[in-house]
Amino acid sequence: MKKSLALFAAAALLGGCATTNMNSKKETDMITHSVFFKLKHPSGSAEEAAFLAEAQKLAAIPGVGTFQVLKETSPKNEFTYGLTMLFKDQAAYEAYNNHPDHVAFVQQIWLNEVETFQEIDHIPFGE
Amino acid sequence: MKKSLALFAAAALLGGCATTNMNSKKETDMITHSVFFKLKHPSGSAEEAAFLAEAQKLAAIPGVGTFQVLKETSPKNEFTYGLTMLFKDQAAYEAYNNHPDHVAFVQQIWLNEVETFQEIDHIPFGE
Repeated sequence: MKKSLALFAAAALLGGCATTNMNSKKETDMITHSVFFKLKHPSGSAEEAAFLAEAQKLAAIPGVGTFQVLKETSPKNEFTYGLTMLFKDQAAYEAYNNHPDHVAFVQQIWLNEVETFQEIDHIPFGE
Repeated sequence: MKKSLALFAAAALLGGCATTNMNSKKETDMITHSVFFKLKHPSGSAEEAAFLAEAQKLAAIPGVGTFQVLKETSPKNEFTYGLTMLFKDQAAYEAYNNHPDHVAFVQQIWLNEVETFQEIDHIPFGE
């Protein structure tokens, strides 16, 4: 029950997938940055919910557009969650990477709690 | 990679740049199916272009929504292209997987021309 409640709370927090795209560039022309991962925490645990709640805060970093927490569903990989966000250009992407809130998340949370991950970035073919 | 394994894994493939979302479900609620890959062909080769042109034809298979060919840009993996498409539900996804045009693409083109790949599927967290 505790686990269910924790997950439900996280879903309430994260399910909204805030859209924070603050520029006029078409989303289809932007850089999509994504990372798919498996946590060390058990599925449905309070620790998992806490991790996802912290990850959601990355959406507030300047330059981050259309941020989403994803449930990875393919049986053909080991990942269970994903994060995806849009950047209008490489400079915005790098500013996010170097932002102290992102650096702190990586050093204090990500490196301790993620078992395995894969980053995938893409732009539309032809750009 | 064993052909049988590759066939099974690749059996969830994709297609082009056309938007063929023919239902009223919100895109954010749909199943996103994607595969990121590296071809055996040299970058910029005619063989590469021919492969991508064939892949785009998958967009015409019934049930495939919002199909895109992607350029993978992260230095943190070995993939150079991606295909992504939306499905309104698991039944539409499976119908695509089993469609003879998809099966023929996998058997006649994908298995011969792709060096390595990773499938990633996702839905919004909380669904």
